[in-house]
Amino acid sequence: MRIPLDISNEIPLYRQIENWFRTNIQSGSLPAETKLPSTRELANELGVSRITVKNAYTNLESDGVVYTREGSGTYVSPPIPDLGVRPPIQPATWPLWQMEVEDDYAIEPAPPYLSPSDTIAFIGVGDPREFPLKEFARTVREVFDHDGIEALEYGGLHAGYPPLRETIAHILASQGIAARPGEVLVTGGSQQALALVCQALLKPGDTVLVEKPTYNFALELFRSLKLKITGIPVDSQGMQVEYLEPVLQKQHPRLIYTIPVFQNPSGMCMSISRRRQLLELAARYNVPILEDDFVSDLRYEGRSLPAIKSLDPGGQVIYTGTFSKMLMPGLRIGYLLADGPIFDRLLRLKWVQDLATSNLMQHVLDTYVTVGRYQSHVRRSTRLYRKRRDAMQMAIRRYLPAGVTYAVPHGGLFLWLRLPEGMTCTELLPKAMHQGVEFSPGTRYFPDPDEGLPFIRLNFATHTPEEIDEGIRRLGKAMRDA
Amino acid sequence: MRIPLDISNEIPLYRQIENWFRTNIQSGSLPAETKLPSTRELANELGVSRITVKNAYTNLESDGVVYTREGSGTYVSPPIPDLGVRPPIQPATWPLWQMEVEDDYAIEPAPPYLSPSDTIAFIGVGDPREFPLKEFARTVREVFDHDGIEALEYGGLHAGYPPLRETIAHILASQGIAARPGEVLVTGGSQQALALVCQALLKPGDTVLVEKPTYNFALELFRSLKLKITGIPVDSQGMQVEYLEPVLQKQHPRLIYTIPVFQNPSGMCMSISRRRQLLELAARYNVPILEDDFVSDLRYEGRSLPAIKSLDPGGQVIYTGTFSKMLMPGLRIGYLLADGPIFDRLLRLKWVQDLATSNLMQHVLDTYVTVGRYQSHVRRSTRLYRKRRDAMQMAIRRYLPAGVTYAVPHGGLFLWLRLPEGMTCTELLPKAMHQGVEFSPGTRYFPDPDEGLPFIRLNFATHTPEEIDEGIRRLGKAMRDA
Repeated sequence: MRIPLDISNEIPLYRQIENWFRTNIQSGSLPAETKLPSTRELANELGVSRITVKNAYTNLESDGVVYTREGSGTYVSPPIPDLGVRPPIQPATWPLWQMEVEDDYAIEPAPPYLSPSDTIAFIGVGDPREFPLKEFARTVREVFDHDGIEALEYGGLHAGYPPLRETIAHILASQGIAARPGEVLVTGGSQQALALVCQALLKPGDTVLVEKPTYNFALELFRSLKLKITGIPVDSQGMQVEYLEPVLQKQHPRLIYTIPVFQNPSGMCMSISRRRQLLELAARYNVPILEDDFVSDLRYEGRSLPAIKSLDPGGQVIYTGTFSKMLMPGLRIGYLLADGPIFDRLLRLKWVQDLATSNLMQHVLDTYVTVGRYQSHVRRSTRLYRKRRDAMQMAIRRYLPAGVTYAVPHGGLFLWLRLPEGMTCTELLPKAMHQGVEFSPGTRYFPDPDEGLPFIRLNFATHTPEEIDEGIRRLGKAMRDA
Repeated sequence: MRIPLDISNEIPLYRQIENWFRTNIQSGSLPAETKLPSTRELANELGVSRITVKNAYTNLESDGVVYTREGSGTYVSPPIPDLGVRPPIQPATWPLWQMEVEDDYAIEPAPPYLSPSDTIAFIGVGDPREFPLKEFARTVREVFDHDGIEALEYGGLHAGYPPLRETIAHILASQGIAARPGEVLVTGGSQQALALVCQALLKPGDTVLVEKPTYNFALELFRSLKLKITGIPVDSQGMQVEYLEPVLQKQHPRLIYTIPVFQNPSGMCMSISRRRQLLELAARYNVPILEDDFVSDLRYEGRSLPAIKSLDPGGQVIYTGTFSKMLMPGLRIGYLLADGPIFDRLLRLKWVQDLATSNLMQHVLDTYVTVGRYQSHVRRSTRLYRKRRDAMQMAIRRYLPAGVTYAVPHGGLFLWLRLPEGMTCTELLPKAMHQGVEFSPGTRYFPDPDEGLPFIRLNFATHTPEEIDEGIRRLGKAMRDA
């Protein structure tokens, strides 16, 4: 049987085999009672492991598509009911209300999920190869043994698994943010925290102040909620707070969104005096601050500054953090920290949005994360990523034209490059992809995308120094083409 | 050491022990260099297992709160920095914007999470004791072995893990709903599916039509989005569609929300002729239908009717389903099925809301669930819950006053009882709790809560026939008190 397999495809091989049989059995190409090759034969033929073929056969059999005759082999089952393959509907026949579904905010299409397998992609968050997979898998077993079925129940309608909320409060305390567990709300990643805050505080047409550049998915969220977005420029000391007051006076924004540490994408930190100034202005003009602390632990040099939240006498700042960047993004667990009447409102919104975040994942995370373990994970990541940042700087000096400029970030994940005069990220990207290197174009990070044309964001944490060297070499080639 | 432990508390015992030490070390009651009892001693004293005490000590040690001297024992560490205990802020000092945070929709407080341990609570969803924990734990191991780190990455910004979307399409096909994987969007439980649909289609002030009574958390969601809610009464054939047309003409609703099978809370099914009528009216008045199929598989007698979605020539109906009721609610995985332009809009909203649903949980679910295994799980649950429904009916005849009436549901999880003339659920509930039995009051299920005063909802699936008998006996006592 010549089953076409695509090893670069994200669909597992066993599933590709399974699908091939399913399609050919349904279409009648493999009629009932056809004998399938033995798992050994097919594995040899396809050059895959026997387990892979076995997995495919087991699934087909458990769905009744094939059956096994003891001591004889595997056969196609008698015809099964139509599995619902139907022709696509013509767009002209959509019901009227669907034709009115306009999309009046532009979201950039997600980057293609499958890049050619040898592309060096300076995108994403941490390096998945560094995740403590074995230790984590052991923790999952522990949770099943220890908490049993409890971990698989809803876990009740509350702000999160109580021990995890305590753990988060302890971790925050170790970073100088005095948090009571009762002020912690567990969310589906920090993206959900942002969405909840916006939905609790803003309505369509309201203005939100952001740094420019800023986190692209915050921008997409604000656009989807039909907010007006005003950008305040960032320099090497973070948001240029001196531009803030006239905007506060004129535009009456309802929220200030800031990433004060290792800002995404610029990598810069807000100075302590600006932090105080920002707090003071926010209080004077009665505007809440949303402080997004996505990666402040990953500091490679210098001293950490107090979070804006920790300077807040009470209730002005809503703080959000995440475990995604430090541990496993697939968990989708973040949190926010809020005190005052807003906490209850956020909690209620969380309930109606999705009732709760996966209780199992919360149990696992809480068992896995202790303050000590968290800090040792951070120390390890810091050592590793600092080297990679330095490797990228070295490669940039070596391979990129002199016109490329950037400020060195003291932590985090990103280098934010200004391209040589006259070059744009949108013309560079296809050339770079052609050379086998990917970056995130600057246009994603500005309220007005055109302002981002001269910039690209490189994630230095996802690749080894050798891969970084090769990737930047390719980028240099792409720049010479551009 | 006299450590107060509360075994009915959801906080695990090891964590209670840990917290007790933490508090007493921080407060200074246990000064530095105090020797802790050995794990054996403390376990004996508290009547818990030694593992429990060890877990507590390990956590304290990994956080640096205590330390071990080789061959000597465990001691309190020298003072550690303040862990951030601070006095609560006075409400009067909240910043101005917080004082403006009004809560103009009423959400009922969640039921107390901890009921006295001997209360028989006829609430919740399935019976957690029936969850296939071991098999599931094995699946998690398989996923780690097979998919490795891939399961812990973001998994990309798409509509869900592709093999899971295929599996869902296959399961739906086996239920007669022709679905293409490309029309499946994986969500954080079906609650998130409802929230996404509302956010994609409705704005504050728009009208949504619902059955009355209907699912309480759909009502809470609609209230939180400041929608106008109009209820259409339900009888033994489901939503009384004959009342629909005048409402469509007068109120121009933007969405019809229906639970056509084993409706929550009434347990009734919508007849096939009403389904067709509903579709026709929706098309004529250009209103989308949201079909919530939360539990249609759990059928105890009679023949299943085609989903409204399966009667839809295309694009009129958005369908949502969930694995929570059948498998493990702690997973928080549901899905919606939509075709046409609305699908892309829902997908984009999902991205900006929380980027993605836990990739790990999607891998695990997909590995665990095959069509065959799903159907055998459903068969098992059906046998079990049918017996429990019958046990509850028998107990009702035996223990409850004759004035109690209800229609027998042919499937699902709930009995919807009308109380004897003059009795209300709100006066009955405290008396029932006092007798050690809990139910869900009817007021939660009506747009106008007062309409629900004569009703209570009983979940018959969460307890054994013996427990059901005892619970209904207690309920009978409470009714005689009322």
